[in-house]
Amino acid sequence: MAIPYPHFIVTDNPTVDTPITVPSPSLPPLILTQDELKKVAAYKAVEFVKSGMVLGLGTGSTAKHAVDKIGQLLRQGDLKDIVGIPTSKMTHEQALSLGIPLSDLDSHPVLDLAIDGADEVDPYMNLVKGRGGSLLREKMIEGCCKKFVVVVDESKLVKHLGGSGLAMPVEIVPFCWKFTAQRLQLLFNEVGCVAKLRTCSENGQPFVTDNGNYIIDLYFEKDLGDLNAASDAILRNPGVVEHGMFLGMATTVIIAGGRGVTVKNK
Amino acid sequence: MAIPYPHFIVTDNPTVDTPITVPSPSLPPLILTQDELKKVAAYKAVEFVKSGMVLGLGTGSTAKHAVDKIGQLLRQGDLKDIVGIPTSKMTHEQALSLGIPLSDLDSHPVLDLAIDGADEVDPYMNLVKGRGGSLLREKMIEGCCKKFVVVVDESKLVKHLGGSGLAMPVEIVPFCWKFTAQRLQLLFNEVGCVAKLRTCSENGQPFVTDNGNYIIDLYFEKDLGDLNAASDAILRNPGVVEHGMFLGMATTVIIAGGRGVTVKNK
Repeated sequence: MAIPYPHFIVTDNPTVDTPITVPSPSLPPLILTQDELKKVAAYKAVEFVKSGMVLGLGTGSTAKHAVDKIGQLLRQGDLKDIVGIPTSKMTHEQALSLGIPLSDLDSHPVLDLAIDGADEVDPYMNLVKGRGGSLLREKMIEGCCKKFVVVVDESKLVKHLGGSGLAMPVEIVPFCWKFTAQRLQLLFNEVGCVAKLRTCSENGQPFVTDNGNYIIDLYFEKDLGDLNAASDAILRNPGVVEHGMFLGMATTVIIAGGRGVTVKNK
Repeated sequence: MAIPYPHFIVTDNPTVDTPITVPSPSLPPLILTQDELKKVAAYKAVEFVKSGMVLGLGTGSTAKHAVDKIGQLLRQGDLKDIVGIPTSKMTHEQALSLGIPLSDLDSHPVLDLAIDGADEVDPYMNLVKGRGGSLLREKMIEGCCKKFVVVVDESKLVKHLGGSGLAMPVEIVPFCWKFTAQRLQLLFNEVGCVAKLRTCSENGQPFVTDNGNYIIDLYFEKDLGDLNAASDAILRNPGVVEHGMFLGMATTVIIAGGRGVTVKNK
């Protein structure tokens, strides 16, 4: 299966920090948009898909490209007997429209492979996910996959989680959300944390997840330090349902950047 | 403030296992029903309430007696300037009908005192709560009280949590609840765990919490061992919202039994 941009160089490389750069010998360098980079990474990930697999289908702009490609390969007969487990209502609709057979975790508690995007990837392949709001279902599904392939463009690489300056989302129950937001902010007081309720840009109302919950976006000034300790500390807050740090879950990260595609394995 | 049964002996005693028994010198022993014992303990707890306090109002048959008594004392003018924070919609309704002024955690993130029942109390004052289904709001509210007074009849005392053979409830998101129930059961495989979805006796439909979630009741054959480790392990399951173990939260336990009332402080 070819990637969509033939000039583009794909390398398998165990370290993200020093990707192998293979200059294209005769053709001029190709400048791709961020969305094109996402598509390159997503298509590379779909190479992991084999007929007969139970697949976790991710949510978001990068995962959408992968789901589209899987639908195309099914239509062409290049893939058969795929069962998809969508990580959101949105992906459910997309996969339905593409004719991908669907099921759920209750019927298929073990998955062969999941493909999804991420908002941040640190050097240890820990992730921040959920800026699209689907972190809970994503974590349930991607937590029970034999392989979890993460696809990102290089803008998502960070030295430490939270390092992009963008949000680390926490899904919470709506009941007394201000209280829970305040507790989360206090919990990370030492690393300069600001907690904000996510709202809908259209009407300013709280954003509501597929599970009827709210999202508190946490912004950190400094490195969180021990991520597993931070994870447990967040989860011990009674109002918290789940957070967007995916620690030790990714088995492969595929990164598309200006110098080519890098595949990093665990 | 007198307890409702004058024959009854009240002792303050730091150990539950060896309560001080003071025989009533002249009157015959009084045999109380379980509900009367609950009332004795609840009224004793209300002695901790002072005018001007922000109070967490518990849920369930024992807490109901305490809320009734607080309402009565307010009406009589024996208490003033109380603000109540109810732990469930049911207690909200009860307190409203009694004319107790109400607020919430968003406005009052620190409480002076909470009074609530429990389903199990172990020798270290760890609790199982939530057989009434209100564990999440109870834990949010009772986790930020300066004092948390637990009121039980002696049938609730156990050697270890789960030791009554009755349920330890876990609130979970409805999405793929069978999967989450299976994960919880597997998590405690070594201590002989059975996980059951709580249903409504009237119609067999899943019981739905005030937060729109389901309850999985866990039944254990053996001692759970390290409760803090068990707590974190449960919370790390993405589908889990909260569980019914209240560890290290109670500051006082009031136990009404055939031999009198025992008050145990942390």
